[in-house]
Parts: sequence; C-alpha cells; structure tokens
Amino acid sequence: MLIFYTAGESHGRGIFAFLDGLPAGLTVEHALIDADLSRRQKGYGRGGRMAIEQDRVDVLSGIRGGITLGSPILMAVWNRDFENWEEYMDPWKIVPGRELFTPRPGHADLAGAARFRHTDLRNVLERSSARETAGRVAAGGLLRSFLRCLDIEACSWVTRIGEVAFEGGFDRQERDASSVFCPDSATTSAMEEAIDTVRDQGDTIGGEFKVVLTGLPAGIGSYTQWDQRLDTLVSAHLMSIPGIKAVQIGLGVDCAGLPGSQVHDELVPSVPRRRKSNNAGGMEGGVSNGEPVVVTCTMKPIPTLRKGLASFDLRDGSPAQAQYERSDCCAVPAASVVGEAMAMIAVSKALLLSCLAPDMESLKQAVAAQRAYGESL
Amino acid sequence: MLIFYTAGESHGRGIFAFLDGLPAGLTVEHALIDADLSRRQKGYGRGGRMAIEQDRVDVLSGIRGGITLGSPILMAVWNRDFENWEEYMDPWKIVPGRELFTPRPGHADLAGAARFRHTDLRNVLERSSARETAGRVAAGGLLRSFLRCLDIEACSWVTRIGEVAFEGGFDRQERDASSVFCPDSATTSAMEEAIDTVRDQGDTIGGEFKVVLTGLPAGIGSYTQWDQRLDTLVSAHLMSIPGIKAVQIGLGVDCAGLPGSQVHDELVPSVPRRRKSNNAGGMEGGVSNGEPVVVTCTMKPIPTLRKGLASFDLRDGSPAQAQYERSDCCAVPAASVVGEAMAMIAVSKALLLSCLAPDMESLKQAVAAQRAYGESL
Amino acid sequence: MLIFYTAGESHGRGIFAFLDGLPAGLTVEHALIDADLSRRQKGYGRGGRMAIEQDRVDVLSGIRGGITLGSPILMAVWNRDFENWEEYMDPWKIVPGRELFTPRPGHADLAGAARFRHTDLRNVLERSSARETAGRVAAGGLLRSFLRCLDIEACSWVTRIGEVAFEGGFDRQERDASSVFCPDSATTSAMEEAIDTVRDQGDTIGGEFKVVLTGLPAGIGSYTQWDQRLDTLVSAHLMSIPGIKAVQIGLGVDCAGLPGSQVHDELVPSVPRRRKSNNAGGMEGGVSNGEPVVVTCTMKPIPTLRKGLASFDLRDGSPAQAQYERSDCCAVPAASVVGEAMAMIAVSKALLLSCLAPDMESLKQAVAAQRAYGESL
Amino acid sequence: MLIFYTAGESHGRGIFAFLDGLPAGLTVEHALIDADLSRRQKGYGRGGRMAIEQDRVDVLSGIRGGITLGSPILMAVWNRDFENWEEYMDPWKIVPGRELFTPRPGHADLAGAARFRHTDLRNVLERSSARETAGRVAAGGLLRSFLRCLDIEACSWVTRIGEVAFEGGFDRQERDASSVFCPDSATTSAMEEAIDTVRDQGDTIGGEFKVVLTGLPAGIGSYTQWDQRLDTLVSAHLMSIPGIKAVQIGLGVDCAGLPGSQVHDELVPSVPRRRKSNNAGGMEGGVSNGEPVVVTCTMKPIPTLRKGLASFDLRDGSPAQAQYERSDCCAVPAASVVGEAMAMIAVSKALLLSCLAPDMESLKQAVAAQRAYGESL
Repeated sequence: MLIFYTAGESHGRGIFAFLDGLPAGLTVEHALIDADLSRRQKGYGRGGRMAIEQDRVDVLSGIRGGITLGSPILMAVWNRDFENWEEYMDPWKIVPGRELFTPRPGHADLAGAARFRHTDLRNVLERSSARETAGRVAAGGLLRSFLRCLDIEACSWVTRIGEVAFEGGFDRQERDASSVFCPDSATTSAMEEAIDTVRDQGDTIGGEFKVVLTGLPAGIGSYTQWDQRLDTLVSAHLMSIPGIKAVQIGLGVDCAGLPGSQVHDELVPSVPRRRKSNNAGGMEGGVSNGEPVVVTCTMKPIPTLRKGLASFDLRDGSPAQAQYERSDCCAVPAASVVGEAMAMIAVSKALLLSCLAPDMESLKQAVAAQRAYGESL
Repeated sequence: MLIFYTAGESHGRGIFAFLDGLPAGLTVEHALIDADLSRRQKGYGRGGRMAIEQDRVDVLSGIRGGITLGSPILMAVWNRDFENWEEYMDPWKIVPGRELFTPRPGHADLAGAARFRHTDLRNVLERSSARETAGRVAAGGLLRSFLRCLDIEACSWVTRIGEVAFEGGFDRQERDASSVFCPDSATTSAMEEAIDTVRDQGDTIGGEFKVVLTGLPAGIGSYTQWDQRLDTLVSAHLMSIPGIKAVQIGLGVDCAGLPGSQVHDELVPSVPRRRKSNNAGGMEGGVSNGEPVVVTCTMKPIPTLRKGLASFDLRDGSPAQAQYERSDCCAVPAASVVGEAMAMIAVSKALLLSCLAPDMESLKQAVAAQRAYGESL
Repeated sequence: MLIFYTAGESHGRGIFAFLDGLPAGLTVEHALIDADLSRRQKGYGRGGRMAIEQDRVDVLSGIRGGITLGSPILMAVWNRDFENWEEYMDPWKIVPGRELFTPRPGHADLAGAARFRHTDLRNVLERSSARETAGRVAAGGLLRSFLRCLDIEACSWVTRIGEVAFEGGFDRQERDASSVFCPDSATTSAMEEAIDTVRDQGDTIGGEFKVVLTGLPAGIGSYTQWDQRLDTLVSAHLMSIPGIKAVQIGLGVDCAGLPGSQVHDELVPSVPRRRKSNNAGGMEGGVSNGEPVVVTCTMKPIPTLRKGLASFDLRDGSPAQAQYERSDCCAVPAASVVGEAMAMIAVSKALLLSCLAPDMESLKQAVAAQRAYGESL
Repeated sequence: MLIFYTAGESHGRGIFAFLDGLPAGLTVEHALIDADLSRRQKGYGRGGRMAIEQDRVDVLSGIRGGITLGSPILMAVWNRDFENWEEYMDPWKIVPGRELFTPRPGHADLAGAARFRHTDLRNVLERSSARETAGRVAAGGLLRSFLRCLDIEACSWVTRIGEVAFEGGFDRQERDASSVFCPDSATTSAMEEAIDTVRDQGDTIGGEFKVVLTGLPAGIGSYTQWDQRLDTLVSAHLMSIPGIKAVQIGLGVDCAGLPGSQVHDELVPSVPRRRKSNNAGGMEGGVSNGEPVVVTCTMKPIPTLRKGLASFDLRDGSPAQAQYERSDCCAVPAASVVGEAMAMIAVSKALLLSCLAPDMESLKQAVAAQRAYGESL
C-alpha cells in the first residue's frame, strides 16, 4: 500500500513529501524529479516568485546509492527565500508582522479560518498555498522512475486557456517547446495572447489540461468496492489539486449528449485485442482496460486579482478589497505538471493494491517464491 | 470516522450496506430509507426488473427502537427474485448455467476478467452490476436522518438527458412529480421523448444530474492535506458511481472560459455574511464556505444495447455480439438518487472528521465535558 | 489489503463478519468454518446458552460454487434464539423490558455508557458481549482455507486455567479430545477440577492459551514503519479479544530475566537454515523469520459472577449487586479458538501487504504477467 | 484522526516524525520535546554513541510562534554524526564500504533481507535500528503538551532489569534521579550491578517498564469494533517498539491465576465514583473507565553481544560470528521513554477518534457551534 502525504508552509523551511510503501530496489533517476520540479515553476503567466525558487529535491531518507530501500522516503524542497521569512515563520517565537486580515475570495482564507479558528489568515494561506504542490511534483517525479520501470508512461498537456482550445494530440517535444505546455506552436501563441489580455486587465484566467497514462495493464483498480475503483482514485487525486473544479474521464461531459452506440468502445478482432475507440478513457467498471488512461481537468482562474475583489476586514467586518500578494495570472501550465504527478500517484497506488494477487494461483506462486527465497538465505 | 462499504451480488441474497462510526442516539426515520430505495428504482427509461424488486431496507444491526446504538450498522436489501437464481448463486455448490462469455463493451466485464482472472463473466457482472447501488442508497437514506438532525439537507435532480438540458432551479414537488426527476414538466416531456427515441433505435442515452447540499457549516473539510479536502471526498464518492464519467464542482468546466473577476465569489457586507454568487459550489481551498455545495455529474449511456455492440467470445476469441441482458435504456434519474446518497456519505465523513475539534479550545471543552460526564455516572 | 469488521448484537438478528480484499479463486471449505464455530461454543466451563446456539455460517456474498469471487464476503451467524428477543431488539419499535441499570465490574457496561451516553446498559452489552467473537471465528474459519492453500497452518491450545499450567507441546488429536482444549488428558482433568472449584464458589477463572502458526515464509511484516510490523498486527488483533489482558510473543515476559546469550536464536549451518531455538516466536524486527509464530495470551476471569460484585444503580446511584446474566465460569477454551482466528486474520493481512512486491524485480514480473494476461484475453 | 509516521535511517540525515491531525491552537512547549529526547539517550547501560548524538528537535512545519497551525507537523532530529557517514549514505552515489553480510540473531537483519531482498544488510539495519525511536519520542514529546492541556499526564518507569524487580509506586523526582529510571535508589544500585555483571560477561540484559496515564476521561476507545478498542491501540503502539516481546494491561499475566472476585474492580459508593482497585488497568471492554491506564512492557536483551552469536556469511553461507557494532548492553531505561511516547500517541489517537461525538446531542451542539462560528466571521 502506497502512502503519500505532504507537509510544509509556503514561506516556511520548505515543502516535504512523504512516500511509504514502494518496493525496495527501484533505481530512481534524480534528474527526473528535478526536471518535474523545474517544469512546475515554468509556464507563461507566472509571476516573479518562480525565479527565486528554482526548486530542487533533497532526499532525506529512503534512497541510498540511487536505489529505494523499502524504507519510507522523505523528500524536501527547501525554500530558497526562507531567510526573508525566517523570523515570521519561527516555530517557537511570535514575531509580529505579515499578518493578513482580509480573506481573498476563491482562496481558502475565509473557509480555512472557519475550519481552524485562525484569526491571522497567514496561518491558513501558508499551508493552502499552491506552493504545496511542489511536494506533490517531487513525489510524482520519483514515481516516474517507478512507472517507467514498469513500462508505464505519463504525460500531460494544456488543452485550453480561456477561450483558446487545442484538440490535437500529444507531442512531447512540441509541449516542452511551448511556453504554456501546449503541443502546438500556433495555439501557444494564441494562449499567450489570451494571458496577456487578462493580465493587462488586472484579471486572471483558467483553462484545461489532459493527463494520459499509457502502458497500464488491464485489470488495475477494482469494481468490487467503491473506494478501490481506479476512477475513484484518479478523480480524488486530481480534484485535490488547488483550483481544479472538474475532472473528466475519457469523453467526460460529452457522454451526456451521445447515444450508447457512439460512446462504448467496441472490441475488434486483433492481436493483441484492441478497441475501435477509447471514449472510456481506459477504464470500464472502475478497472483499467488496457487502453490509455485519459483524464481532463478544469482549473479555475487564479483567485488573486490585481484589480481586487470585494471582501472585508476580519477584525471589524468593514468592507475591504482583497490584497494582491503574488502576480501569477495563469497557472494552468503548472497545474498540468501537478496533475501528471497526482495521476502517477493514483495509478501507482492502484497498481500496488490490485495487480499483485489477482487470483489465488498468483498468490500461491508469490508466497512459494517468498518461502523459497527465505530458505535460500 | 465514518466507514462505508457494501457487499452483495446482483442476483445473490441481497445487497448489503455497512456503516460504522455514527454517533449513538440518532433517531433514524425508517421511511426515509425506503423512500430513497423506491426512488432509485423509478425513472422513465428503466426496464422490467425494477418492478420485481420493490426494494425495502432490513436493518440487521446497530439500530434499536429507531435509535442508533453507536455499534456498526448493517442493512440488507434482500433480492426478491432470489429463488430464480438460488441454485446458480449457491455459495457452496457449482451449478452449471447462466454463464456469460462475451464481454459487453462499456461494462466491467473484460477489465474485470483481467482483474480477477474470471473465465465466467457472470462472476464479474454479479458484483459490478449497478444493483450494488441499492446499498449506497440505503446508507444515504439513513444519513439523511443524520444530516437533517444537523440542519443539513441534500437534494438532486436531473439536468440533462441526451441533448435536452434544464437550467432552472430545484423544486422538490416538481422533481417528485417528474418521471425523470427533472423539476420542470415541459423539460420532462422532452426528456421522455429523447428516451423514447433512443429506445426505438435499440440504443441508450446518458445525461447529467446535480446534487446540492444546503446548511453545511463553513469549515468542513481541510486544505491541510490532499486527502482531507471536501472536494477530494466529494469527487471520489461521486465518480465511484457506475457510469459516471465527469464530476464538476460549482461552475465546473465553465471556469475554463471566464476571467477570475467573473468566477470568484465576492463577499458582500451583510449579516450573516454572504457571497454575490456561488460559482465555487460551496468550497474554497477544499473547505466548505457556508454556501450550498453544488456538484454536477455526467453519466454515460447504459452500455447494454438492444442493437448490440461488437465483441468476442472469451473462450475462443471469435467475434460475437455483446449479449442483451436487461432493458433499461436510461438510468440517469436513478443515478441522481445514488449521487445524492454518495454526496451525503462524503459530507457526513467530512463532518465527522473535521468539525469536532477545530481548535484546541473546542477540544478542551469536549474532553472536559466527557470527563465530567464519566464522573457523573 | 484485507479489511475485516464485524457487526451484530448479542440478542439481535445475528453476528456478521465482513471480509474484503481476498484474491479471487480461493476454494473455501465450508466445513472448516462451521467446525471452528462449533469449537468456539465448546469448552468445559460454559453455560447453557451454548446449547441453544449451535452456530452455523451463512454466506451472504462473495463466494459462489465454493470459490471466492474477489468481491466482499459477508457472512452471517444467525441468532437461533432471536424469536425470544425479537420485540426487544426491534430496530424500529421501542418495547420496554430487559433494561439493565447496574453496571457489571469488568464488563464494558459503565465505560461503554460513558462512551456513548447510553442509559439502558443493554445498549452497551448487546454489542460488547463476547458473542461478537462468533463473527471473528467465522472469518478465521474462512481464512483457514486461505492459509492452508499457502501451506500455512494455525493451531491453538489452552496452557493454563487458574493455577493449573501445561508446558508440553501441541497435539491436535489430544487437544480435540480435551474438554478444555489442552492437549494432555491429565492436565485436562486438573483444569476441569479447577473450574469446578470456582464454579462451586460462585466465582470465575481465567487462564492462558498459545497460538502457533507454522509455514509462514520469512519476510512477512516490515521493520520499516511501526504499523507494518508483524508483532504490531498480531498483538493488536489478539489484545482486541474481550477479556485478553496480556499478549506475549515467543519467550515474552521471560525475556526480562535472561541474558541475551540465552535469548537470541543463533543460526546454525543447515539446509534450509535453522535456528537453535525459537525464543523470538518467529519474528525479528517485526518481520517473520521463517520459524513458527508463537503467541501467548492471558485471559482474565469472566466478569459475571454468581456471587455478585459491588456496583450501583445508574438511575439513582444507590449501591447494588451486579446482575448475574449468564452462567459461564471459564471461557479460556473458547477464547483460544477466537485467538486462533484473530491470529489468522492478522497474518493474512500481513501476507497480503508485504509478500507481494518485496522488491522491484518481483513487481516487474507481476506487472508484466498482468499485462500479458490482459492482452491474452 | 491523528496520523503518525517516522522516516529516516540510523546514519542518514536524521530521523523524522510526521504528525497530522492535531487541532490548531495548541501551545507546544519546545523544552518538553527536547527533554524527552534527552531522556531517551540516557540510562545506565548505554554505549558511546549516545554522547555523540545529543538529540534536539527541529520543527520543519506545522508549528508557528509556538502554536500548532492545524497543518501537518514534520519534525527532524538531525544526525550529528552524519559527516562521518555522508558518503556511504548518499542518496544518489554508490560508495563502497561499511557493508554487512553477517546477520545478527535477534535483529531484523536476516528477516529484513528476506523481506526486501537486500544483500547488503546495512540496507536493513539502517532503518531497523532503534535510533528510529528518536522520531517516536519527538512525537510523544509534542503530544505531552497536547495531553497536558487536556489534564492528562503520562509517566513511565523501569520495574525490572534482569532478576532485579521493583514493585513500588511512581515518584517523578526519584525516577529522574535514577540512572535506570527506576524511582528507588536501592533498586537502582542493584539494577546497575546487574548491568555491570552482564557487561563484564560480554552479554546483554533486558527488563520491564510500566507506563501510566492519568486523567484520561472514561469513555475513550470503543467496544463496538475490534480496531477501535483502546487496548487494541495501546498494545499495537507498544508492541511496535523494537525489542518489546510482551504487553500487559493492568494485572496482565497475573489475571490467569486469580478468581474473578479478586480481579474485577468493584464500584464503591463515592463522589466521584471510584473503584476498590485498578486491576483492569483503566480499561473495561476496550474503553477507558476513568482509572489510570496501566501498561507493562517486557523488553528482550539487546541482540548485539560483545561475545558474539553464531551466524553465517550471507554471501557464501559459511559460519560466522555476528558482528559487534555498538556497545549498549541494556536499553530498558531508554525503551521506557519510547513506551511513554507510544502510549501518548495511542491515547491521543483514541481521544481524537472517540471523545468528540459520543452521541448525537453532542454532535448537534458541535455542528451548531461550527455553523455559528462560520456565520460570525
């Protein structure tokens, strides 16, 4: 069973990712993790903080000589700007300054204050900040080595920014060349333009991205219990990304308007057996069917607007404009990297839960092998 | 912590719902459970089996004299058609007959066979059947009493069948009068017509429904960990419903095309404080914000088509038409009832996890009260 | 991952066991389950209710034709005495009668009333009753088939009743011939005598039993996280049995008085490699080491004494004698059967968690096999 | 729900404790954590490494200005000796040296190698080392603030080293003055002598300690499900400590030899109500009963003996003496500190699970308070 958590505040020591349950003996490619961390920081529409950060992973436990030990893995993405925040974020001393009292609509600020009874909203936003996703991406970057070793590959790309949509297919080189992670240069330009327009207006903009996993064997996940389904796991992991408001599998919302005969993926005679289409997005009955897993996520616009939003001061209830703290005006490209990471986490969990003892015969063999191994030592 | 599982095969003894973790002393309204079970069986577009079933809940444990004991609750929805299946579903004897070897595209059949290495597809479909959702609705029906006692109310309605959409608001009476659970009589007629059309073509049709929860306090769920967010919980529970391919929260996919200034819900001066809009669907940062929780689900068309779909015979790989076993051609109304149930389960879990010790002061009071209670006995 | 829960009240419809996560394709021996249920009801020192019950398992889901489906398994042990209790235990109607207001020291009564604020102690004792262990034994009986299929065998025997101890080894035939499940006829007589003595005094008596599992491969459990250790799992499952107050692994408490050179099990040159001793009880560092798993449990005397214990009336606080409701005066033999069941549950969980992907090489093979299987369909 | 994990290797960067689920607003006393870490390193019978370490907690997340944020808490106990190990423990480079091939009986070495297929035993022992318990003690030290705030206090003391036992009561000052954490100076001297004796013989020695929690309200834990019982939680957490082979609650193993009338704790008329005794160790039916929680643990002797134990070389199977790597010859005092920590973790979990919504009335009030709070913002 794979366990994944993060810890860390946005302006604290760093963001941390905890992963327990990976097999021992996995060769982890260091560079893959840093590459994903770096990708998360890019994307047209980001503000100035990205330049400061230059995230790098620092493995604190569980990997030795490039190989997983079977022990819990703890990774840090240290905050390179910490010295400017150290006194305000000190775990033991209270240092006044940098308090926030005006909840920003669309952020966790007000709901989070209700959750934990915080009066200084900094105590909410430090953890609810999207900076936390650096931990998710570090975990995803590590699992990329895991999945590759199993011949499973994940990719993501931006399919929409505002009104500009892209319906073509994936091309890794094109995507990596695109400032918005969209594998098409013309669309990239149009998306940049859409971002420029809202930035000029002091506004922000959302969009959509797709995550696709190829190579996943049929039979991962399970139809037998609601919480073991692959669609349950995938949607939970993706909807948990800050700003995501919709998750679609395969055809998604377009299923509503089509007759069954145009939705279901017929089986054609071939070796290996294939489908005529992949409208199901690689899952039937909550179980992978051997086709690529295809998920689409919608991200809302960033809730911090230069032109401000109506709010109030928590201390006295008086009307106030929400403060403007950072300058991103579009985070869809970054979110697509986080989505890829979360999809890899979800699929890795499903794999470790369901692929190992599909039936008693497989388990008998695994246990016999384990017994023989123990006796051979 | 609320635990929810189901058990049971479609043509077996019954479908069972297991719920553990509810407080003691809840007055459960029996009729609410049966009303939901009955609603799940209705809906224009269902086939003949619905008439046979007439589901009723039978509480096997955990409730006494109409009140929860704090003990685990087990509920049965017995299969009224069991006598016709008893010999084939016998737990101990193998009785040949009713095997299935042609996987139906869109069902769990083939993916499920890969999952558990079943050769008789009946062993997959008996559990992957949507009949399992009777257990979910029984649990939801019970939690309706729970949530009502806390002044939280859930409702759902159908917003789309095929090309026919409804964008108006909810009205319980209208919905209950509608054969498709859409609170508008004109749209209902149009939806019936859409269903008739595909039925005549031997085809099937999907659609959309909305689930809304009102009365949920602000501060339920948490932004602090990905798996404690209310959006994570809600999307996992709803995406787990057979046939659901998209889950949207609030504005959902429409967030992609609008600027931030038109998406985020500004806070207006009022007592109690309100938002100008509820585009967020009642959640910010994964935490309830006091506005109604609004979720939209898309259901694909039923995968069993009278006109058949291309498939093959598992035994020899020869091409074959998928068998036609039941006659529903639209299950969106039923799914809306299941969606309501799963949303109630998700929100009840979040409530029990997060609302009880928001801060140390609340916990101190709770522990002191517990200590005093124990000492008073 | 194996999930195990029970439901059911002592005088309710029955006791239910829920098991999810077993592989498909396991051939379950029906008779093994009933044999364990029957053994649980035996044992010198039991009272009259045992005769009424004659527990039998009724599988409600998850098994078909004697084979597990991979679906959740629900088993019922129906209450054969239910008709005498039906009106008092009705889930919906409140029928006065059979209330209890005097908490029995040693039972959950008073602590349980504090837990759930029950005023009628029947609402506590119906669930806290040791009758619930019938569900555990049903689950254990099923897992006996599972473990046997993997060449793992569990047994238990009584090693002490009051002052009478037995230090010899296990012999199944002798144990089955013994009225107290002690594999020695002379000790059996002495134990019977000890039981007779306390019964004559209106008192009760406890004791000890051992559970041993043979055939478990080395490498089950894990030293890497506190909650994945085999000793953690085994002790949790055994200490959870009503009345158990101590759990020892291997030498247990005797470790305290011996030097390390007499405790640790040296490795001798042999094929397969063996230990000079098994003081560790088959676990080192929380991981099975290939030697038999050996656990000893101490059970306190039954808390219901014919001669009564000082208590009070919950309604007014006035002193009162605890009521005498059933007539067992020794339940150690029955508890040994429950212990065997819980140990089988614990070990099955550990097996399914840890034996399947010990290293990346094994996982690669498992995933490749899964992929090939899916493609072969 | 409180989640607790550790990470970190013995000679790696440090040991890390992850705690998620504590309420916000808890004032944490920094000094309490370091005091516990320091106590864990003391104790007559420890070897040289303790002097090097001088463990201190470094909070990496979740606490700000001395107060919990409600966010996940990550604590580091950095390894002060890391520079001597850095190259050998590098996460990315393989540096030969410090391999181990002779499994030490009593350690996880051989069983752990079977678990994860490690060939260099260093990959096992780095994580299975008792150094990991520094993370447990850091978590316990933090929860000491939590429990104190709720008027719950934990203590532990050594009750036995080898043949030398202490049966008196607890006195904090005496315990702190004792080199073996036994609150009696005469027994302390005798224990020191016992340790000296085995050390002179190149041997090691185990013992026993008691953990007691006072102030826990009645009604914590639950009799309703096996895994929610307080005894289940407490025994799992304590048995998980390296070297622990027996856990007893209250009278423990002595229950076996006494009649019920001498075991069960009668209720005497008094305000607040008291028991004549506390043989149950503060739990009845798996639920706290308001009396002190009393647990006794037995620790085996340390498995690393100067005089060596028979083993073999993993590479060729040839007989070999187990290597001698560190020089502790008794770790019972240190283990008592770990036991206190694990008991605090177990009880904090139970508290957060069960004390908050005992009945529907309490929950109604909590939800209403939450709603009112949200509306007051």
